[in-house]
Amino acid sequence: MNLSALQKARYAYVPKLPGMLRHGISEICVKEGLETQSVADQEKIKALFPNTYGKKEITFQKGENTSEAKKQVVGVILSGGQAPGGHNVICGLYDALKATNKENVLYGFKKGPSGLLEDDYLIFDDAYIDEYRNTGGFDIIGSGRTKLETKEQFAVAAEVCKKHGITAIVIIGGDDSNTNAAVLAEYFAANNTGVQVIGCPKTIDGDLKNEDIECSFGFDTATKTYSEVIGNIERDANSAKKYWHFIKVMGRSASHVALECALETQPNICLISEEVAAKKMSLSQIADYIADSVEKRAANGDNFGVAIIPEGVVEFVPEFSVLISEINELLAGAKADAFNALPTWKDKYAFIEQGLSKESMAVFEILPEGIQQQLFLERDPHGNVQVSLIESEKLFSALVKDKLEERRKAGTYTGKFNALHHFFGYEGRCAFPSNFDADYCYSLGYNAFMLIQYGYNGYLSKVSNLSKPAEEWIAGGMPITKMMNIERRHGEDKPVIKKALVELDGKPFKFFEAHRDQWAVETAYTYPGAIQYYGPAEVCDLTTRTLALEKGE
Amino acid sequence: MNLSALQKARYAYVPKLPGMLRHGISEICVKEGLETQSVADQEKIKALFPNTYGKKEITFQKGENTSEAKKQVVGVILSGGQAPGGHNVICGLYDALKATNKENVLYGFKKGPSGLLEDDYLIFDDAYIDEYRNTGGFDIIGSGRTKLETKEQFAVAAEVCKKHGITAIVIIGGDDSNTNAAVLAEYFAANNTGVQVIGCPKTIDGDLKNEDIECSFGFDTATKTYSEVIGNIERDANSAKKYWHFIKVMGRSASHVALECALETQPNICLISEEVAAKKMSLSQIADYIADSVEKRAANGDNFGVAIIPEGVVEFVPEFSVLISEINELLAGAKADAFNALPTWKDKYAFIEQGLSKESMAVFEILPEGIQQQLFLERDPHGNVQVSLIESEKLFSALVKDKLEERRKAGTYTGKFNALHHFFGYEGRCAFPSNFDADYCYSLGYNAFMLIQYGYNGYLSKVSNLSKPAEEWIAGGMPITKMMNIERRHGEDKPVIKKALVELDGKPFKFFEAHRDQWAVETAYTYPGAIQYYGPAEVCDLTTRTLALEKGE
Repeated sequence: MNLSALQKARYAYVPKLPGMLRHGISEICVKEGLETQSVADQEKIKALFPNTYGKKEITFQKGENTSEAKKQVVGVILSGGQAPGGHNVICGLYDALKATNKENVLYGFKKGPSGLLEDDYLIFDDAYIDEYRNTGGFDIIGSGRTKLETKEQFAVAAEVCKKHGITAIVIIGGDDSNTNAAVLAEYFAANNTGVQVIGCPKTIDGDLKNEDIECSFGFDTATKTYSEVIGNIERDANSAKKYWHFIKVMGRSASHVALECALETQPNICLISEEVAAKKMSLSQIADYIADSVEKRAANGDNFGVAIIPEGVVEFVPEFSVLISEINELLAGAKADAFNALPTWKDKYAFIEQGLSKESMAVFEILPEGIQQQLFLERDPHGNVQVSLIESEKLFSALVKDKLEERRKAGTYTGKFNALHHFFGYEGRCAFPSNFDADYCYSLGYNAFMLIQYGYNGYLSKVSNLSKPAEEWIAGGMPITKMMNIERRHGEDKPVIKKALVELDGKPFKFFEAHRDQWAVETAYTYPGAIQYYGPAEVCDLTTRTLALEKGE
Repeated sequence: MNLSALQKARYAYVPKLPGMLRHGISEICVKEGLETQSVADQEKIKALFPNTYGKKEITFQKGENTSEAKKQVVGVILSGGQAPGGHNVICGLYDALKATNKENVLYGFKKGPSGLLEDDYLIFDDAYIDEYRNTGGFDIIGSGRTKLETKEQFAVAAEVCKKHGITAIVIIGGDDSNTNAAVLAEYFAANNTGVQVIGCPKTIDGDLKNEDIECSFGFDTATKTYSEVIGNIERDANSAKKYWHFIKVMGRSASHVALECALETQPNICLISEEVAAKKMSLSQIADYIADSVEKRAANGDNFGVAIIPEGVVEFVPEFSVLISEINELLAGAKADAFNALPTWKDKYAFIEQGLSKESMAVFEILPEGIQQQLFLERDPHGNVQVSLIESEKLFSALVKDKLEERRKAGTYTGKFNALHHFFGYEGRCAFPSNFDADYCYSLGYNAFMLIQYGYNGYLSKVSNLSKPAEEWIAGGMPITKMMNIERRHGEDKPVIKKALVELDGKPFKFFEAHRDQWAVETAYTYPGAIQYYGPAEVCDLTTRTLALEKGE
């Protein structure tokens, strides 16, 4: 392998632990806090988690280590999409485990939760771990999207743990994976397996967040990477002065990524899906909102701009959701065959016109032909529209173009409109973790082992006070059930971790709201540049604007 | 303006000058070299440049400054596409100019060469310049694509210079802009205007390169930025293990960018347009070449990969060029109206089938329908196919998919193929310049002023020995005519700077060629990470692999 200069240099980086974890394993003791309650539906959640509900939140402190001396055999799993820093969680876990007892063993289950079920693993040693320190990606053991949620799976998992003498499982994942970790923990406790389960909060989407989890790991690095390239594009727009760039960023169910990127780069436009839903905005209203900025800037002679579009925004537009349901209905089962047999798009269009409600047809009509065709021609194996494939950045630029033509005819707009399109997602999920994510992740892993060593089960590794220097971070744990409520999923009531959407009365959105009218007209771009791992602390140890604003800084 | 932490920190960076320019203006003297000849067509070029041809190459040295003490009024122009470091050329120019004589004045003509013709300018001062030190973009004065090439334009330029008492013009541009700089210099000399012209070699494409110019500025930063995100995508591919990423990178006429990115990131596939042309490859052959890698990797259980596609590659495929010519012919003038009047794509297809040669129809047939339609439906104002709009990354992934289906039927391929697409260009043209580009550009500007001060005209600011630390760089100048030859352009013989294509017997390509068979099958990715401006020299002062290989390092 031909390692890059940066990768070699990053191997030498020593991640910063929270102050109370810096005195060596023998000097880490537990301070118990209050018993916890779930955020909602307490009785129902309690009934579902009789063995793991209501436990105390804890923090670690400097003091004599009173944990039981016992050999630990731990298994770790990466679950779901990549996020920068996953390798460091495993490195921190490994280091604490080995520092506690050289005989302790760390198993890595491969390709996600399926590795546990299929007993597909490797055993970490120093040489192997050292190749992954402070690097991006999940390639250390791979990840996967298998969900651990059935009793049958749990029984298999218990068998595998028993076979290897595993005492604890660490699941590194998002909200669903941590929900499953809690259910697995309850199962293990109920069945007296003696196996503990600890979760770690991962996701670049930033939607695993609440009063306890200040941010999920990876969000910092991913948004910094997107902001780097968005800033570069802004500077290009402001130099060439002839293009409007429509930039889609990852984030299907929440717009934290888009919002953070907007706070970092101050573009002319940033859509926030949660606001679109709250205001029940139509496609036409959104297009008008963007066209207003284009028109005002053109009046100032600025025929260029940058608009950030969150990946999932169309799903938050009420009329568009209705359209999608109607299309899914229209093509359900055998009806798809009749549709597919129609020879030309014109024939198909007539079929669609007949099948959709008047309201949905009105929405369908304004879509650009490419998107219209995509909705009908590219469907998933169940025949459903693949909403995630919709190129919403192109959709909105096409709608804006139409709006501008109307305005040109009305005489209010006389500018030029040339659009370019971008989508950033895969570019940021596997970047070398920022110093913040490298430190935070290493601390989460180190801390996860301390929770194991002290016998906790169904706990989330929790590191907080993150807007302060690492020295002041607080390490501890809390029952995963604390974050849960009951939600209706696939027709069933399920205990799940509440997904954190962008709060429209939260400080980050409020800041954006207070400035966006100015940004829409002026050129107020900020150029963050590439993530720096070295240099002045204010450059290389800065965390997100979202976190800073939430913490009132 | 809300400046990023990095931008503030970069203001404090002090660019490194070549050693011989470090002793102060009063200690810079000239060493004359040999008289020069153009690279080809010497007699013709000499006849076209009677006043500026054949001058001596010069280098600067430490020694008593013997230049004439005279007030300099210099105008600077940014020409063409953005490249990181343009601001630093102007800063270096400004600093040398002011260090020589505080009374000297620097004009910046706005929005490219048109600023000179329209007398649209600003006058730089310390406060203004300081806002742009070590930043990306061309927003300091803007850029433009107006070509300075007619006698009428030159006469206007001479008038504007006379009006302001301008003694020299610095043109920062690519091969065409420097060609025009040489012609303007000759005009100014022939007409005894007393105005000098100095060129600076800019372009991220890397095609302004020869035995004198080791690299154009911006190439280093742009390719590092693309390599960062390509590396991140590689790491994502290697973690998720389920996608083939087809990544198009900028570079229409030469594949230096693609090649450098491949050398930095070691992808499975990288197409090189010059090789495609030399081997007269067909679309089908290229698709088979990529499909071979997909098939071999699938046989190893690796259903993922990364392929880099240079932006201009389809124009280098002989059969595709013929197809484009035929389409342009088929739709020329009134024939387009007949075509446009056809009601359905089916009718249009029949029209096309009748109009194309059998050979071109065979090429047309294998294209995905989206590309077929684009070729006919999206034409420029002259009715020509817009080759630059062709999404070649999608074209090749579609062709590869077809090939794999054939192989699946033949039983040689049993893998899964899911493709994702990316295009990187605007992301890198305005990044904060790497230390290399910051130093190189500042030196080019500083050096340009020394050439002015010593009375040179029609010279290129030349800084060489670039693979060594800046201390060892060599600063000087040479007549732009040295790089020229005669080429046929738009039916006329024109003196132009020879464009540097990727040399198939050059060291960078040879290195790639020696390794690519291994990279095609194995996962040999290198992850360069984000450009670093601070930290260990081997991380933050590294230049391109292309330059290192060319210099035998």
